[in-house]
Amino acid sequence: MEKFKVTFKPDNKTVTAEKDRTILSAAISAGVNINSPCGGDGVCGRCKVKVTKGKVVSQPSGLISEEDRNKGIYLACITAVLSDLEVEVLAEARLDSARISQAEEIEYQESQFKEFKRQALTRKVFLELPRPNLQDNISDLDRIVREIGKIEDLSGIQTSLANIRSLSKILRDSDWKVTITIAKKNNVPEIIQVEPGDTSKNNYGFAIDIGTTTVSGQLVDLNTGRILGTKATYNRQASYGADVISRIIYAEREEGLETLHQMAVDGINEIIAGLAKEHKVDLNDVTGVFCAGNTTMIHLLLRIDPSFIRRDPYVPAANSLNAMRAGEVGIKINPRGILSCAPGISSWVGGDVTAGVLSAGQDKAQDLCLLIDIGTNGEVVLGNKEFLIATSASAGPAFEGSGVGCGMRSSSGAIQRVRISSDYKVEFETIGHGRARGICGSGYIDIIAGMLEAGILDKDGKIKDIAHERIRKTDLGREFVLAFKEENDSRGDIVVSEADIENLKRAKAAIYAACNILVRHLDLDFEKVKKIFIAGGFGTSLNIESAIKIGLLPSLPLERFVFAGNTSLSGARQMILSAQASDTASAIAAKMAYFELSTEPAYMDEYMAALFFPHTDLSRFPNIK
Amino acid sequence: MEKFKVTFKPDNKTVTAEKDRTILSAAISAGVNINSPCGGDGVCGRCKVKVTKGKVVSQPSGLISEEDRNKGIYLACITAVLSDLEVEVLAEARLDSARISQAEEIEYQESQFKEFKRQALTRKVFLELPRPNLQDNISDLDRIVREIGKIEDLSGIQTSLANIRSLSKILRDSDWKVTITIAKKNNVPEIIQVEPGDTSKNNYGFAIDIGTTTVSGQLVDLNTGRILGTKATYNRQASYGADVISRIIYAEREEGLETLHQMAVDGINEIIAGLAKEHKVDLNDVTGVFCAGNTTMIHLLLRIDPSFIRRDPYVPAANSLNAMRAGEVGIKINPRGILSCAPGISSWVGGDVTAGVLSAGQDKAQDLCLLIDIGTNGEVVLGNKEFLIATSASAGPAFEGSGVGCGMRSSSGAIQRVRISSDYKVEFETIGHGRARGICGSGYIDIIAGMLEAGILDKDGKIKDIAHERIRKTDLGREFVLAFKEENDSRGDIVVSEADIENLKRAKAAIYAACNILVRHLDLDFEKVKKIFIAGGFGTSLNIESAIKIGLLPSLPLERFVFAGNTSLSGARQMILSAQASDTASAIAAKMAYFELSTEPAYMDEYMAALFFPHTDLSRFPNIK
Repeated sequence: MEKFKVTFKPDNKTVTAEKDRTILSAAISAGVNINSPCGGDGVCGRCKVKVTKGKVVSQPSGLISEEDRNKGIYLACITAVLSDLEVEVLAEARLDSARISQAEEIEYQESQFKEFKRQALTRKVFLELPRPNLQDNISDLDRIVREIGKIEDLSGIQTSLANIRSLSKILRDSDWKVTITIAKKNNVPEIIQVEPGDTSKNNYGFAIDIGTTTVSGQLVDLNTGRILGTKATYNRQASYGADVISRIIYAEREEGLETLHQMAVDGINEIIAGLAKEHKVDLNDVTGVFCAGNTTMIHLLLRIDPSFIRRDPYVPAANSLNAMRAGEVGIKINPRGILSCAPGISSWVGGDVTAGVLSAGQDKAQDLCLLIDIGTNGEVVLGNKEFLIATSASAGPAFEGSGVGCGMRSSSGAIQRVRISSDYKVEFETIGHGRARGICGSGYIDIIAGMLEAGILDKDGKIKDIAHERIRKTDLGREFVLAFKEENDSRGDIVVSEADIENLKRAKAAIYAACNILVRHLDLDFEKVKKIFIAGGFGTSLNIESAIKIGLLPSLPLERFVFAGNTSLSGARQMILSAQASDTASAIAAKMAYFELSTEPAYMDEYMAALFFPHTDLSRFPNIK
Repeated sequence: MEKFKVTFKPDNKTVTAEKDRTILSAAISAGVNINSPCGGDGVCGRCKVKVTKGKVVSQPSGLISEEDRNKGIYLACITAVLSDLEVEVLAEARLDSARISQAEEIEYQESQFKEFKRQALTRKVFLELPRPNLQDNISDLDRIVREIGKIEDLSGIQTSLANIRSLSKILRDSDWKVTITIAKKNNVPEIIQVEPGDTSKNNYGFAIDIGTTTVSGQLVDLNTGRILGTKATYNRQASYGADVISRIIYAEREEGLETLHQMAVDGINEIIAGLAKEHKVDLNDVTGVFCAGNTTMIHLLLRIDPSFIRRDPYVPAANSLNAMRAGEVGIKINPRGILSCAPGISSWVGGDVTAGVLSAGQDKAQDLCLLIDIGTNGEVVLGNKEFLIATSASAGPAFEGSGVGCGMRSSSGAIQRVRISSDYKVEFETIGHGRARGICGSGYIDIIAGMLEAGILDKDGKIKDIAHERIRKTDLGREFVLAFKEENDSRGDIVVSEADIENLKRAKAAIYAACNILVRHLDLDFEKVKKIFIAGGFGTSLNIESAIKIGLLPSLPLERFVFAGNTSLSGARQMILSAQASDTASAIAAKMAYFELSTEPAYMDEYMAALFFPHTDLSRFPNIK
């Protein structure tokens, strides 16, 4: 097989690719992130690249204009390598490293966390063992067990054959001074490692939130509970589809599951290696990883077939996954380190939601609370210390900047806050304060709210026929211009079209309807909900007022809303630091009822009624004129 | 590296060997058993082979007579391959397959066994699962756990990631009818396998006694408890030394541990494959193996460094080994099958003794009992339901036919019973009733008893100066001829020398002294011992009266002696068939005190006093004239 060198700009990464391999596939090998929400099927038109040197062959596509084609612009997914290449990934196709919001580590999470007794997933104990003599010549293993037993009750403690094989030598070489790493597996304490000397001060772990779009990780000192650093990266699987359904479909291809599994693992390893290097932590001293993610993400991470998640009656292979060897999955920490996953409750309500409830402290609340995790799947939990009921609505990826014309994820250059004056003047703020490259979810919410307020948009989501340079008619309907080409870093005007608004309307309707159905299911109304936790990647950039104005969030006093941040990540951190928190999460999963929207006849009615801005039933939004 | 073909006769097995490799090493590769108690150091002179074709080079050895050398006879351990060879293993160097004593499955064992509740190490349960629907769409794993829970309480049941990965497909392909194999690991129930359809009827296991000399195994139907077959083979490690000390020394060589480990595993696999084939059992239906063996044998089997067992203060790496994957050790049964080992209590009192106490029911006895396991290590347990105290005496391999001139293991052709009349006439019986090839342990005991009675031997172990063709003087002292060359199949006269008698005297003194010290340690005397269990390879071929006459066993009424047979094997069978028996063995191990003879000053005195036939203190043997 002939092989060629493909160099990607601006990353300047080079990879060897076989003849006829697609540029997208080569980019993935090179670790170059290209936006490809359709999963490489040539239908979304996002993965645009410019071939600046070399020969390619491409399938014809209506998604590339003739002008672009003349410039050497192709869709990476349907263009094959025929020679050595130099390829520029166009700005609009790039997936930047996600910004890290330290603001997510908010006080609220910490206050919740103090309630749990500290006992990390993996703990180190230094032991100075009495040397054996003829009056005391029990086995090496029994000696360790006996001496640990003097410090704490760990009856029935076990270890692996591999540890027993190396035990005698380590004990004698270290003059009977060793550090034991203890983990609980299947509720039985286990010695996972015996190290010579006192290494007990060096014990680190990672909390990981494996989201559909973003993978976030935190390096934690397991002795002190201190967060040493936080890092996020795009989930590399995103090149194969923006939502969980398209990932599952991809996983059903030959080698598909293996590919997606490897990408999840690679993303996590990248975060782990990066933070460990930054903070000068030896990977051998990283003994535990706790992951929270939705059910599909956890299946893919563990290379478990997710096929039946998407098929009626929506059955996952497993919801609670025991502590296992991290190495068994490919996660590169101490080879005897432990990986644990937050327990989920169904195909659509995963461990990220359990972690969310834990982190928000919803399970201990006296008042009725609503947790809304806004993402491609909108997950909603209603309840308090008495009960918990969860549901999940397929909102689509619009709020994550996918499936909308100028959408992008909330990374550098994304328009995140917008004000539209009554004379249609537009002010906006981008992430990183540079020139605009596109619009992220919170930006769209502000835009729709602003357009409604300025009278540009009707309740139905149609742009009014107003004579103004920002309002234009195209073959597909009207559009509103946020930033003209010369004002931005995109490849044209940044606009919001009626098609985009339709997508966003469906997304907000799905989430609002899910919230409403849950509340109605219990014969309650929103007024009874005293606290609403907003969780997810939106973070603090979401404008709650705008979200209420467009009918995404219920119309309640602003002081009832709490930005809980990335509760999946903070919940995972609580679980790695505290067995009590981990047990609480299991109790939450056991207690939480799952409400299946697809079998609820009222859901479709609620959803239809919510397909207006803010809602068909205006009495629900009394503050909106 | 030049390679040659070496064919061994009479086995007719051919193996490829590199130039300069020893014939012994080639024989081991070929699976040809050659007696080599010195471990291949060229000092015991046992591994004689005749090179009938081809070229070899040998180190000079005084152990080969010039006559033999002229016939092409060499020591296999110091003779290297220089061309293709044909090699005849001399009869005296051959290790036959051990005879299988079905008599060992004696009623006594069975009567003890009935007391335990049946619950096998690995169990199969057939489940017809309700199909999931929208009202009941818990995860596949939760569904299995829920349905098992309706049959029996298995709270906290776990499974491996590998099983979860294959679960969804198996459930659907089998139309929700599956068979679950359950084992207890670390006291937590675990699903070790999920199979399509109903395979619950096919569940088999092996009880294994891994002895220093012989490995015995039993194929057991885990559903019915029925023994389908018993097989024994020599422990292949015997080529590297007859006793545990020489094995440990060999294990300390480079690759030594790996070699001995592999030989233990190969021996077990041979028994398993042989019995499975014989009884038409699919190895995939063999889901469990329970091993009992002394501490060194278990270390070697599991490839755990045994070095510190033989060094003061005699510390093993571990005494109790959790249930583990049999495949982790190399035992070829179902890849997800479980291996468990009987718990030991010290370097010198291993799981074979715990199994022995269990099998004999000594831990439940009202009366004071003494269990004597006669082997290279003589293990002795004194006690009853109130207490148990064990010790171990290094008897040496004389009773197993090693280290004595014409000694051989109790296999075909071994003189096992002997009568010597007052006019020095000799009658004997061989195993298999063919011509004599040597003398095994029980034969030696009869011979010494007979010689004492006939007045040939004095109490000190010296052969009297009697003018008779059977009594001869050599450079090394006198010897007594059992069978002249023309009467036997050996390569000369079969004799007992004073040096042999000295070895046997030391062996019997060690065991008797150990028994006596234990009894005295508790301020008792033998008269208080109401039952003596005789365990080990001697089986029913041991003549108790002779053993008392020579001072090996205490002088007690014959009806107090019980032949318990191979209690290590029967104990292992009890443990694989009953979790209660296995728990009882753990309780026995926890309860049993270990008495270290080497730190007991009185032991040497007792031992010295026992270096007479029957004993210095004749009052202890009132029945002996």
